[in-house]
Amino acid sequence: MKIAIIGTGMVGQALAAQFSELGHQVTVGTRNVAATLAKTEADGMGNPPFSAWIKGHTSVVLKTFAEAASQAELVVNATSGHGSLEALKLAGTENLAGKILMDIANPLDFSQGMPPFLFVANQDSLGEQIQKAFPEAKVVKTLNIVTAALMVNPEMAAGGDHSMFVSGNDAQAKATVISILKDFGWKDIIDLGDITNARAAEMLLPIWIRTWGAIGTPFFGFKIAR
Amino acid sequence: MKIAIIGTGMVGQALAAQFSELGHQVTVGTRNVAATLAKTEADGMGNPPFSAWIKGHTSVVLKTFAEAASQAELVVNATSGHGSLEALKLAGTENLAGKILMDIANPLDFSQGMPPFLFVANQDSLGEQIQKAFPEAKVVKTLNIVTAALMVNPEMAAGGDHSMFVSGNDAQAKATVISILKDFGWKDIIDLGDITNARAAEMLLPIWIRTWGAIGTPFFGFKIAR
Repeated sequence: MKIAIIGTGMVGQALAAQFSELGHQVTVGTRNVAATLAKTEADGMGNPPFSAWIKGHTSVVLKTFAEAASQAELVVNATSGHGSLEALKLAGTENLAGKILMDIANPLDFSQGMPPFLFVANQDSLGEQIQKAFPEAKVVKTLNIVTAALMVNPEMAAGGDHSMFVSGNDAQAKATVISILKDFGWKDIIDLGDITNARAAEMLLPIWIRTWGAIGTPFFGFKIAR
Repeated sequence: MKIAIIGTGMVGQALAAQFSELGHQVTVGTRNVAATLAKTEADGMGNPPFSAWIKGHTSVVLKTFAEAASQAELVVNATSGHGSLEALKLAGTENLAGKILMDIANPLDFSQGMPPFLFVANQDSLGEQIQKAFPEAKVVKTLNIVTAALMVNPEMAAGGDHSMFVSGNDAQAKATVISILKDFGWKDIIDLGDITNARAAEMLLPIWIRTWGAIGTPFFGFKIAR
């Protein structure tokens, strides 16, 4: 499958690496290719810059948001929540129309320090805002509830014995995303229904961040124990 | 321990029964004792009325909110979220001062149909509103993330292999509540910190309600799988 990853951070890198490993044709999209490749410092979390990462992932191609999206069958929104709508607009409404748009971002607002709160919650969500802004895209919200490495390798926590949620309006798009999640190693995938359910998945972030603090590691998942 | 349960619904009944079974002296508080005992219809969920329930739980005493709270060492807020502040005011600020106040309620608003949303969320919580309204009470938020029967008997889902959160400002009050949770059968209890963390525990309700719909049973818990 031809896949575009919108976003060059650690989430985008994790997804790009795993999709590529699984044999997909992966293009990562960025605002400015030259600027992204010129950056040589680690990010605020100490992660190496994209320019270093891509040297170890030679089958992955870096292009502009629009170039990446135009060639893709499936687009992944791996930007930070604050930048998602703008990045997707740069990717181009026409380049997203009719395509599966996996939204794995979270509407986190760090402007008042830690822990962050959600800039949209409760009666709306980032997933819904994206679906409204790009009505012809088939938005599927998923993977936003675990740390990047676990998204594509759930076995790194509790042997993979934890749950993942999907929400979206298009049944076929969800089926494709569920198939991808299974390829990543997810075993307990819970379909919540339409994209309005993204608000519930995003509202897991406050407990996710605090649990990380309480147990001292981000390598955990939420298991629906029944 | 002398325990007051504020609220006569299915959550109050579950807590009263289990505390009584464990040998505690339990008083349930209600707005109007005669009116509560006069009600003979089941509630909207089909649960039997309190007047029928208490006939099978003869060691439990029914009194007014204030009478129940005044005699107690530990008070449980088992009201619906919309009624919590008013019921606790009727219980009496002076009757809550210095006492542990276990808040197990949720700020659910059903006014716009199903699924409900939260009438306070994200940068505030019901737990914090109660702590602010009763600054001398030692509020501990817990148990709000599972169905009533599981609160006091976590083994009814996945053999009890799921997690419970506590939040509160007073370390000793939290230690007492954690000890009670262990008596109920909880094994993985995660202390999130002060009462502001109640907002994260309450924000689990949207995914809790939708997961119930998706898997077809409320008998599940959230396990922090690590």
